Amino acid sequence: MRPRLLLVCLLLPTLALADPLPSWRAGALKTSIIGFVDAVTTPGADFVPAEARIAVFDNDGTLWVEQPVYTQLVFAADRVRALAPSHPQWSTQPPFDAVLADDLDALAEAGHHAILELVAATHTGLSSAEFAALVSAWIAEAHHPRFDRRYTDLVYQPMLELLAYLRAEGFKTFIVSGGGIDFMRPWTEAVYGIPPEQVIGSQIELVYEIGDDGQPRLMRQPEIGFVDDKAGKPVGIARHIGRRPILAVGNSDGDYQMLDWTTSGDGPRLSLLIHHDDPEREYAYDRDSAIGRLDQALDDAEGKGWRLVSMREDWLRVFPAAPSTPR
Amino acid sequence: MRPRLLLVCLLLPTLALADPLPSWRAGALKTSIIGFVDAVTTPGADFVPAEARIAVFDNDGTLWVEQPVYTQLVFAADRVRALAPSHPQWSTQPPFDAVLADDLDALAEAGHHAILELVAATHTGLSSAEFAALVSAWIAEAHHPRFDRRYTDLVYQPMLELLAYLRAEGFKTFIVSGGGIDFMRPWTEAVYGIPPEQVIGSQIELVYEIGDDGQPRLMRQPEIGFVDDKAGKPVGIARHIGRRPILAVGNSDGDYQMLDWTTSGDGPRLSLLIHHDDPEREYAYDRDSAIGRLDQALDDAEGKGWRLVSMREDWLRVFPAAPSTPR
Repeated sequence: MRPRLLLVCLLLPTLALADPLPSWRAGALKTSIIGFVDAVTTPGADFVPAEARIAVFDNDGTLWVEQPVYTQLVFAADRVRALAPSHPQWSTQPPFDAVLADDLDALAEAGHHAILELVAATHTGLSSAEFAALVSAWIAEAHHPRFDRRYTDLVYQPMLELLAYLRAEGFKTFIVSGGGIDFMRPWTEAVYGIPPEQVIGSQIELVYEIGDDGQPRLMRQPEIGFVDDKAGKPVGIARHIGRRPILAVGNSDGDYQMLDWTTSGDGPRLSLLIHHDDPEREYAYDRDSAIGRLDQALDDAEGKGWRLVSMREDWLRVFPAAPSTPR
Repeated sequence: MRPRLLLVCLLLPTLALADPLPSWRAGALKTSIIGFVDAVTTPGADFVPAEARIAVFDNDGTLWVEQPVYTQLVFAADRVRALAPSHPQWSTQPPFDAVLADDLDALAEAGHHAILELVAATHTGLSSAEFAALVSAWIAEAHHPRFDRRYTDLVYQPMLELLAYLRAEGFKTFIVSGGGIDFMRPWTEAVYGIPPEQVIGSQIELVYEIGDDGQPRLMRQPEIGFVDDKAGKPVGIARHIGRRPILAVGNSDGDYQMLDWTTSGDGPRLSLLIHHDDPEREYAYDRDSAIGRLDQALDDAEGKGWRLVSMREDWLRVFPAAPSTPR
């Protein structure tokens, strides 16, 4: 190799990594993230081959905003309102009654399972393709009540940088969310760079059948097949990935088992817990919040070796400066 | 870029693709496979972006030998025999009685579901990690009764070339098998270059729990969670991949729906059906075989546009020349 080319080849990685995480404030946390990545990618005692560099991320509250209610709940509520005229019984039937009464607190309390119930009930008789089209149309238009931006513009800039940095270092990045897998897949590739086959989430049952047009289709059933939350997260990881992650990021007690499963493996491990303590730029909530409750995991984080990320202290910027999603 | 370097860069792809499928006999089939790959990777009307180049492969009878019985059945039978002394009731209880009487015909007739039942019953009370260790130890030692080679050396050389060729052309290759997902994952990466997260198969239920040693683990339950066969294959594809493949390869009626789902999508599609018609080098079976029955798919192949692969005519070599798996 010619000397000048050699020099370029040697310098390129250094240049690229000069600051892979510009929205993370310099300090012990940022140093430990980069130190972990350096350790597992550099030949030596802590080296991890690329194929085992599995990184898993919760979605709601970890990659994008989950307050005042989960985005998927807003989507499902819009659908309930649209279908309500032909379902008069919903006005007294939970969780539909809460939607129709705009009782967000009751809905938030009901959690991911209520969302799945709403989605299952209001999206029966649709094929997978039809559902994906509904999601895509909705997510392109709906706006967050406080920030007046589309939800896909309310993703966390520091997390976008972390995802890109890890992939540049040979990691494979996965979403492991309590939310519906089919609600996320239509847009995760464009927004996070995470393709559908690396999205794990809660599922309703699907049935393969031949439609009236003679074409095969996958029909969504009014039945929950899998809840990818709490102890379901390591199960979802086992089903989809088949190996234990070495890096996990979450923000609530729903991520406890995923973080525990990740850090209890052999060799170097990193688990991060995002603490929403930034009421001005985003929200502040933990132990008393129905959405994204962070209680037990906050108590145990230090003993388990999980690193807390303070949104207020550790993130120089919360959201991307300009809307990232083209209309 | 310097002229000589530019020349090397331009020539490299051509050189590498001179004959990407050396074990496939020159002819219409080979031409159509390469023509399909060229079409979807070349800018133009049939171009498919890399992220949508999803290729799915059945395993038993498509990537490796499935006669005289599925390899996983041999594994499960070995386990039944080992545990039989402490389960006297098995001597009269199907499908255990067939195993203990060495009645391979009855077992073959019972199919994938019986395998899952045997595996579920004989591998209860094990963690995922313990099960993977059992599989790894078994597959490293067990030999095929006719060929006296390890099962992982009885993979099809032409299919190894097709997998490598597709990956070199930007495809992502997945296994979609009726066999057990956890029986395949310990060895598919070394043997096929397909990582665990791209292996889809039948599943037994898993439960996440904290063991007596205080460490989390995933325990295998005596309950079948998902059967990835026939109409289950497109469902498995939807759950794991979330988009429709553009290329599918199978060899039996169990692959019918996977092939149909693949070819009924828009744009260029390729489905191949491997016909076992080579009794000298491998086996000859189709309509009357309990293992890998090929009947309806054989009738409908021409009308559906699925290409038949004649093992005898189209493959210059069936197995790798030398054992591919290091001891």
